[in-house]
Amino acid sequence: METPYYAVIFTSKLKNETDGYEEMGQRMLELAQKQEGFLGVESARNEIGITVSYWKDLDSIKKWKQNLDHLDAQRKGRVAWYEQYTVRIALVEREYSF
Amino acid sequence: METPYYAVIFTSKLKNETDGYEEMGQRMLELAQKQEGFLGVESARNEIGITVSYWKDLDSIKKWKQNLDHLDAQRKGRVAWYEQYTVRIALVEREYSF
Repeated sequence: METPYYAVIFTSKLKNETDGYEEMGQRMLELAQKQEGFLGVESARNEIGITVSYWKDLDSIKKWKQNLDHLDAQRKGRVAWYEQYTVRIALVEREYSF
Repeated sequence: METPYYAVIFTSKLKNETDGYEEMGQRMLELAQKQEGFLGVESARNEIGITVSYWKDLDSIKKWKQNLDHLDAQRKGRVAWYEQYTVRIALVEREYSF
């Protein structure tokens, strides 16, 4: 993708019980993809989970954070699924691939 | 960590044969931790791998990229282990945790 754009780096540790987490993740993925300014997302998990989503600008990130269904998912995440998480908002200045 | 600082987002797909990859990864982790400006690293892998390393500034990232042992590891990675990878250099502007 052409720089500059934004990355939201979400790192998390899940609790032992995660009923409903996968389904919610899938729903949020589908919803995020419909947001204006959404550029893509990549995810991996073993001991910890890392999800990096890519966005056109800070405004699209802010709107996604405040989306009502997403707010509900965030609340459930804190109550039910996440032991711990960290969110980092970062401006991607350079990108190269092999 | 106190913002601003830099994140290097490394996403990769491995080939089927990855002999020696784990050992090299461990060596590079130990070496990176000794570099000036290194702030931390987080990694997860299932279908794809995501490694995010954190650095004080662009200069420390540049020096780590040009470290001779690391250059050798990068070369081996392209020849032997990686099907594909992307590197993104990003300025972390905000961070919050739960």
